[in-house]
This record gives sequence, structure tokens and C-alpha cells, in this order.
Amino acid sequence: MSATLLVRRDIDFILHDWLKVGGAIDREAVDGLLDLSEKLASEQFLPHFKRADIEEPELTPDGVRVCPPIGDALGSYAELGLFSASFREEFGGLDLPHVVCQASFAYFAAANIATAAYPMLTVANARLITTFGTPEQIEKFALPEIAGRWFGTMCLSEPQAGSSLADIRTRADADGEDDLGHRYRLTGNKMWISGGDQDVSENIVHLVLAKVPAADGRLPEGTEGLSLFIVPKVLPDGARNDIVVAGLNHKMGYRGTANCLLNFGENGGALGWLVGKPGQGLRQMFHMMNEARIGVGLGAAALAYRSYRLSVAYARERTQGRAIGVRSGPPVPIITHPDVKRMLLTQKIYAEGALALCLYCAQLVDRADDPESMLLLGLLTPVAKTWSSEYGLAACDLAIQIHGGYGYTRDFDVEQLWRDNRLNPIHEGTTGIQATDLLGRKILRDDGQALKALFATMQGTIARASSVPALAPRGIELDQAWCAVSAALAVLKDRAPAKAMDNATPFLWAFGHLVMAWVWLEQACTAAHLEGQTADERAFQEGKLRACHFFFETELPKIDAWLTSTTSLSDLASAASENHF
Amino acid sequence: MSATLLVRRDIDFILHDWLKVGGAIDREAVDGLLDLSEKLASEQFLPHFKRADIEEPELTPDGVRVCPPIGDALGSYAELGLFSASFREEFGGLDLPHVVCQASFAYFAAANIATAAYPMLTVANARLITTFGTPEQIEKFALPEIAGRWFGTMCLSEPQAGSSLADIRTRADADGEDDLGHRYRLTGNKMWISGGDQDVSENIVHLVLAKVPAADGRLPEGTEGLSLFIVPKVLPDGARNDIVVAGLNHKMGYRGTANCLLNFGENGGALGWLVGKPGQGLRQMFHMMNEARIGVGLGAAALAYRSYRLSVAYARERTQGRAIGVRSGPPVPIITHPDVKRMLLTQKIYAEGALALCLYCAQLVDRADDPESMLLLGLLTPVAKTWSSEYGLAACDLAIQIHGGYGYTRDFDVEQLWRDNRLNPIHEGTTGIQATDLLGRKILRDDGQALKALFATMQGTIARASSVPALAPRGIELDQAWCAVSAALAVLKDRAPAKAMDNATPFLWAFGHLVMAWVWLEQACTAAHLEGQTADERAFQEGKLRACHFFFETELPKIDAWLTSTTSLSDLASAASENHF
Repeated sequence: MSATLLVRRDIDFILHDWLKVGGAIDREAVDGLLDLSEKLASEQFLPHFKRADIEEPELTPDGVRVCPPIGDALGSYAELGLFSASFREEFGGLDLPHVVCQASFAYFAAANIATAAYPMLTVANARLITTFGTPEQIEKFALPEIAGRWFGTMCLSEPQAGSSLADIRTRADADGEDDLGHRYRLTGNKMWISGGDQDVSENIVHLVLAKVPAADGRLPEGTEGLSLFIVPKVLPDGARNDIVVAGLNHKMGYRGTANCLLNFGENGGALGWLVGKPGQGLRQMFHMMNEARIGVGLGAAALAYRSYRLSVAYARERTQGRAIGVRSGPPVPIITHPDVKRMLLTQKIYAEGALALCLYCAQLVDRADDPESMLLLGLLTPVAKTWSSEYGLAACDLAIQIHGGYGYTRDFDVEQLWRDNRLNPIHEGTTGIQATDLLGRKILRDDGQALKALFATMQGTIARASSVPALAPRGIELDQAWCAVSAALAVLKDRAPAKAMDNATPFLWAFGHLVMAWVWLEQACTAAHLEGQTADERAFQEGKLRACHFFFETELPKIDAWLTSTTSLSDLASAASENHF
Repeated sequence: MSATLLVRRDIDFILHDWLKVGGAIDREAVDGLLDLSEKLASEQFLPHFKRADIEEPELTPDGVRVCPPIGDALGSYAELGLFSASFREEFGGLDLPHVVCQASFAYFAAANIATAAYPMLTVANARLITTFGTPEQIEKFALPEIAGRWFGTMCLSEPQAGSSLADIRTRADADGEDDLGHRYRLTGNKMWISGGDQDVSENIVHLVLAKVPAADGRLPEGTEGLSLFIVPKVLPDGARNDIVVAGLNHKMGYRGTANCLLNFGENGGALGWLVGKPGQGLRQMFHMMNEARIGVGLGAAALAYRSYRLSVAYARERTQGRAIGVRSGPPVPIITHPDVKRMLLTQKIYAEGALALCLYCAQLVDRADDPESMLLLGLLTPVAKTWSSEYGLAACDLAIQIHGGYGYTRDFDVEQLWRDNRLNPIHEGTTGIQATDLLGRKILRDDGQALKALFATMQGTIARASSVPALAPRGIELDQAWCAVSAALAVLKDRAPAKAMDNATPFLWAFGHLVMAWVWLEQACTAAHLEGQTADERAFQEGKLRACHFFFETELPKIDAWLTSTTSLSDLASAASENHF
């Protein structure tokens, strides 16, 4: 069975033919990074994909032990400079564009997302410190992370505060000041901490959201009182900080990523240093949120992508049955059956579409100086996160179906990819939270600038499609879908905010499909202009065009069904009483 | 956390208020069976739900060992006469209607589907023998199964022949005749045999599809050459038959059900007795197929149902966040959030709808003497199997989402229910196979009688709905959906059969939603006429009505999207080349 993680021609297509990252960076550097990523992911991440699922992290008196090859793989990842790739040279980085680093990361996520989660979290953590920390904090905490010697975590959730960060109860009491800044003693319990402990890195840098008590000793209400603290596992003087692993969560998938319940301050308070100013914690976290959420979407897309490639390989090899009406002769490869082709093409539009969208968003991250790009990034982030997670999971589901009974066994990888991917609609903000973010914060409470930026972008695509005869009708359909979504928004804008949000999730689905139709039309326009010289290249081009048409034919019409409850302002669900269930 | 498996009021509603099984059977007998089922399922099937997932069946030199409480639970199931419930008195049965037995079975499937699979298979096996076997075969093999002392299996698939039974290579060579009939020696490998071996029952009765070689020694091609054989693990003389467990399949879910690769005849041939005549094997199997497929659908519905009830219980207990616009005060139970209500109501339409449809079909099974009921049963079976499996899985998925991060851990049951349910779209004919069965065999190759029977049934419902003001518009929408499906069929009927089948699966989804809209309108009409005296009863009634409206508002509009590719006769998928993927 082929172990293709991602199709390199497709990555090149997205990065160079479509996004044209070549203008900003030497092509050879990109190729080198992708070659290296594919090789390392295949040789050191993929081989323990199953083993780390079986040999789960274990809580010992000395802390959490993870499956040993995880440490070996991450050691190589550090040695090759991959932790540092996206950081500026002043921080010891390679200063590569985010979009290129994310393409590299997709290989590791496809091969073994549970192992890849450690560097993903570490990089996000280090970026937050380099953005908001003091030079001393950066040198002490971020640089060892960028070198891959220390790992990082994000400590937001608590047992009673998952989606609702306003209810965080972890407390930070002032404890003087030193060269690392204002020092505090932290007390509280943090839940769902990925990488919360492990035996791989020399130290762990926890970034902890906590509340500084007011003069009367009480914690402030709401999210405004949240501050962010650097709380290392090992203190600068070499002593262990007051942090205890109270337990491990035993997950259905993503098992190689140790997920901990951490108790801070059972013995007087864990030492931590304030990042930036008090009360800025959530804002600082949100600064990183787009990146983190696109990272989740990208991981989901990568899992979907590998499921898809495994399905193609299996469907080519597995023989079963014959064409309708044929009753003798040898069985044929199942890839010749129309229903299997339908499933593969569906996987293709989900997996390749999600990957393309997430890399498009990653390119927006690189344009931090352009306000319009930032507006677009904010608007597209909940889509990139949710659409990739939900439809990526659907692609993994189809992989099991294509594999039949074999796909339901642990002898094949597709069942684990499905289990792993099930986390993605939950963490970094559930689908429901993303829907609220999209419809509430990004649309109804925005002054329309973000939507206007998207509209302009889509109109550009439609104009380009109009010059390609086969694609012009799809441009018109995209325009119609835009109008349908706009009409629904017009209805919502006249309503009380709480009522308007009742059907935020179906709206997100409709909006997500609108965006994905645009992504596919973009890809098709790009593919239409490829000058395919070889049979492989022409097949690649035809595959992209076929997938675009398939999306418009089978998926785009669903928008109307989702908008029904939005435009009717239905309260069938929201007005239900508890005892109706 | 409440451990409600199924809501008894709902089961009573389906059986008595809607299906009116009371005419055929004493209400007290039904109540007694359901009380008993709920109690036994809760007390003996539910407690080892997780344990049997962890302690998988093990292959030892003495055969397969299963987790011990499985045997205890099935012992009680036998003692209480539950294996025999649906059999006629002459076979030692209780002669209860199939629909009532299926309602009983739903409790066991909800509690622990992997353990419940053993009696499900055994009953299907025994029914086949009582239908087609000789009196001697019935006495020797079926009666011990009906008593629950022996268990049964269905041996159809082989490693190279899953969906394509024409390619079966297991061979049966004539070996004389005795009081049990024509004796054969069987040689071949059977794959995916649920309950293929275990250490619970005294003996195992395998029903094996195999081919009798022609005079030249070659096996006949196609499915016409398939015959059915009774091949017991222990022979009537007490000797072990020539059957070896070559391996166990390690599944993602349904783990308590030992799933085996069985080698027949490694040492000269396993002894087996022909059932009925040679070449009738597939026809005999198909005679049981409706029942088996509805059983799969019912199991899927039961898993969905428990997921739904667990979600309701969790959503009532778990507090998180506040209503939009409220910024202080204690967190509220998540059941008050509109998006959680939306997910719960979606679970309700999937789980209760699927259960109602499967029990409706089970009632049709009881009307074997009525040709119109049999036509309807044939038409609805692929829907009951597939819709319940696919949307039941979606309900389980929502259960994880409602539970958030907790739902992704093995501390809660919902992740296992999701894993267990993933088998249902695969076994007893995949979704693709069901789609071919529906559109090909049951519609395009039928003379229209089955569709006519469904049309008449739906028109009756629409007429009843017209007298309830709140439901009359839904009747019109159901009629419109029927017209849309009929219009698509009119296009397909003019096409070459192979082309018409290209989009059989999207057609199945559209047809499935049409059927489910009818099921919900039936339930709503029934609920509208309930004379609710208590608050609970009125809430039950309102819940059914709300769910019906919700199905029509959020689900029914999807039909149009699925029919698009059917009516356009799209070949975007079917004409794709291998290298487009």
C-alpha cells in the first residue's frame, strides 16, 4: 500500500501556481523545506503512528512518559531547525513565510498529528512570547523553544470553564519583581492541557490564563480580568515549579499527545511572570487565535488528505465485483465502480479544498501589515477551522467506507485517522463557538468591511472565471450563492442579536460552502491556465477542474437548505423546553 | 448521570398509539416483555459495555475466549426465554409478533450492541433453519438455538469476496446422506464471521454459503451456484468438526463480538448438511435479508437513541456560559443554549425517527401474508438499514459534540457508541449496496407496484394531516417531495440501466429523507390526537410535534440538493479516470 502523505504536485500547485509565494521567497528554499518535511515525516513520524496510539502516555511518579519514538522524532525535528522555520532571524529563525511553514507542517500532521501537536503548540507559545514578552522573557523562555529544546503549552481551560473563559478561577497573587518582570504565585486547576507534561523536552513553558485578585481579594468577573503568565515547569534556578500533573485524559484519538489536568500551586503557588499588562490575557491569546485555529483546520485537512490518498491506493489494488451487466470474468479494481469514484471525488473536494483554504489563510497571516488581508483573515478563520474539521472528518469517514470491513479494523490506518480527526471540531473553540464568532463578531458586529473584502475577492475570481468558457457558469452560480447568503444576512441584521444568533451554526455551514465554492473556482481558474505538457500534468489539471464542477454540482445546492432556518428566523430549536427532549 | 437506554413512553407511543400492535396481542404481555428487557439490559448488558470494549476476544489454543460477563448476560437472556420470543410455539417459542420482539431487542442493542449481536445472529440463523430446513435439521440444530444453548453464525464473506458473493470459492463436495439430509465436505476460508467462535455456547451452528462443483470439478460462476449448508462446530456424534479459527479481526468498535476468519476443511473437509435444494443458497439468505438489515438499522437507531438520552442528561447537568448579552451570575445548564438545543433536536429527529421506521418495518415483517406489505417492506428495507446507520452515526457524532472535550474521552460512553455505530453502514450490505438494491432491484426493475404501495400509504398520511391545521402544510410539503423524487425517477427510467445507477447513492439519500419525512408526519398526526392529561404527556406530545416541524424545516429541503446530480444524469464522478484522483 502506498504511503503517500500529500501529493507534492498539489502542494506546489497551491503554493506556486495559485498563491504565487515565489515572489517572496526563493523557490529552491521552499522545495528544500518540503523535500525535507516529506522525508522526515515519512521516516520518523509515520512509523510510530499506530504504536503511539496503543502505547498511551503514562503517569509515573516522575511525571508523564510518552511513547519513546515521539521523542526521537521531535529530536530530529528540532535538529533540522523546523521549530524555528517561521521565526525571524533575530530569534534564531529562518524567517520563512508562514504559508510555507504550514505546508511543511501539513506533512507532519498527515503522518502523525499527535506527535506533530508538540511543535505546533510550542511554536504558537514561542510566537506569543516573542510578540508580547520582554527581551528578557524572550531570551529566557522563547529562544529555547525556537531551538526545540523546550516545549510549550497553552493553559486556558479549567474543569468548570471550557468554552466559557470568563469563568476561569485560577488566581495569580503578586510576588514581587525580578529581571523577568512582575512575578506572581499561581493557584488553580487547568484542564485539557495538551503536552502538559512529557519526558521529551528539557523544560516546559506553560502560558497560563489567570486572574489577579482585586484589592478586596476577590477575582474580577468576566474575561476582562484575565492576564497571561509564563509558568515554567523548571524554574530559572533549576528548581521544580509548584505544578503537579493531577491526571491524564484518556482520549479516543490523538493519543500520543499527553493531555493533562495540571494543578498549579498546591504548595504555596507556582511562580509565573506576567506577559505584557494585567487584563490583557485574552487579547494576547486572541492575537494568536487565528493562527492556532487555522492550524487546527490544517491538521484536519492533512488527516483528510492522507485518508483520501490511502483510499485511492486501496481502491486501485482491491478487486471486487464487476460493472453492472457484466457477469463473468475476473473481479475489477473497485476504483472502476461509479459509487467508489463518487466517494473518492467527494474526498478530493473535501481534503484538497480544506488544505487549499487553510494555506490561503496562512498566506493572509503573512500579510499582517495589510488591513484588508487582516479583515479577510478574521472572517475566514472560523470557516478554515470548522469546515476543514467537519468535512475533513467526513473525508475520513468515506475512507473507512471505501475500505469496507477492512477499514473498520485496526490493521488499516483509516480508522485511527477518523478517531484522531474527531477532536478537531472540538478543540480551539467548538463548531458552535466558531459559528458565534463568524456571525456575531465577524459579521453582525462588524461594520461590513470584512464582508466587503471577501466580496471584492470573489468578484475578482468571478471575473477571471468568465473568460474560461467551462467555468463562466460556475462564476454565475458563485454570485448567486453570495446573493443568497447576503439575503439571509439582511434578514438577520434587522433582528435582536440574541434571536439572530439562534441559527448561527447552519449559517456557518452555508457560509462555509460559499467560501469553499470560491476556493474551488479559484483552483479551477488556476488549473485552466496550466500548460500541461505531460499526461500526468494534464490529468492533474483535469482532476482539479472535475473536482470544481463536482463541488458546484453536489455541494453548493445544499446552501439553500441551511439558509432556510436562518431566513425563516426559526425558533423551533431555540424555543424548545427541556422536557420536549 | 442518568442511564436511560430508551424512553419507554416513546416505545409505547410507537407500538400502541401509532402501530396499534394491541389488536394482535395482549397489552400486558407486551408490557411484561418490555419491563423485563429494560431491566435485564440495564442490569446485565450495560455494566460490561466498556469492559468488553477493553477486554477484547482472545484467540487461545482452545478457541476464542470472550469477556466473561458476556456469557453471564447471555445466559440470563436464554433463561428468560428471549431467544425464543419470536418463534412459533411448535418450536418452543412464545409466538410474539416480530415488532414487539424488536422493541425488546432495541433495549439490549442500546445497552450493549456487541453482546446483543450474539442472540441477533442466533435468532436469524434459527429462523432460516426453521423456514427451509427439514424437521430433523430443525430439531437437531434450530431448537437448541431457540433455547439459547447453541449460538449461530452466518458465513457469507470470504477474504476476496465481500460485497461480491458471486466470487465465493468455498467448495462443498458431496459426502453421502444421513438422517440430517445430504451431507457435504466443505473447504474454504470465511471472513468477517461475527460470533465465529466463542466460549459461551455449547455449540455453534454455522450457516455457510458454498458452491457444489460441477461434474468437471469446477465451481459454477455467479451467484446461482451458491448453496447453503449447516456446518456445526461440534458434530452430532460429539466430535469437533474440521473448522479452525485462523484469526480474529481487531475492530474499532463492536469489540465484544468476536469476529473471525474461519478455515473450513484444512483436514479433509468440514461436515455440513445442505439446506433445501442446491443453488438456492442466495435466495434462502435473501429471504432473511430484510429482517437482518432491519435488525442492523434498529441496532444503529438504538445506539443513536442512547447517545441522545446521554446528551440530554449531560446537557441538563453541565453548566457553562450564559445567555447572549448576560455577563454576570452563575453559569447556566448548557441545555438552555440555542445551539445545544439545535443539536439535541437534531439527535431527536435522527434517533426517534430511525427507531420508528425500523419498528414500522418490523411490523411489516409480521404481515408476511399480505403482498402489499411485502412490497413495502422490500422497498423500505434499504432505507431502514442505511438511513438509521448513517443518521444514527450522525446522532452519535452530535453526542460527542454536546459533551465537548469530555465526550472525546473514554470516561464517557458516547465515544464508544460512535465507534460501535460506525460498523452499521458497512455490514449486511454497505450503503452503496443498499443504494443499488433500492434504485435497481426495488424501483427500476420493479413494475412500480412497490412505489404505488408507498404512494398510497403516504397519501393516507397526507389526508390525515390535512385535518390538523398545524400539520396540513407539512402534508403539502411531503407531497411536493414525493413529486420531486418521482420526477427524478422519470428521468432515470429513460436511461440505460448502468448510467441510471451512477448516482444511486444520492438518490437513496433523497428517497430516505422522503420516507423519514413521512415517518415524522405519521408520528405528528398520531401525537396530535393524544389526549394529554398530565404535564409530562403534553410535553411528550409537543416534543413529537416540534420534532416533526424541525425535520421538515431543516432536513427535507436537502432532498433537492441530492436530486440535482440524479436528474442531471451527471457523470462527473463516474466518468473520472483513475489518474484524476
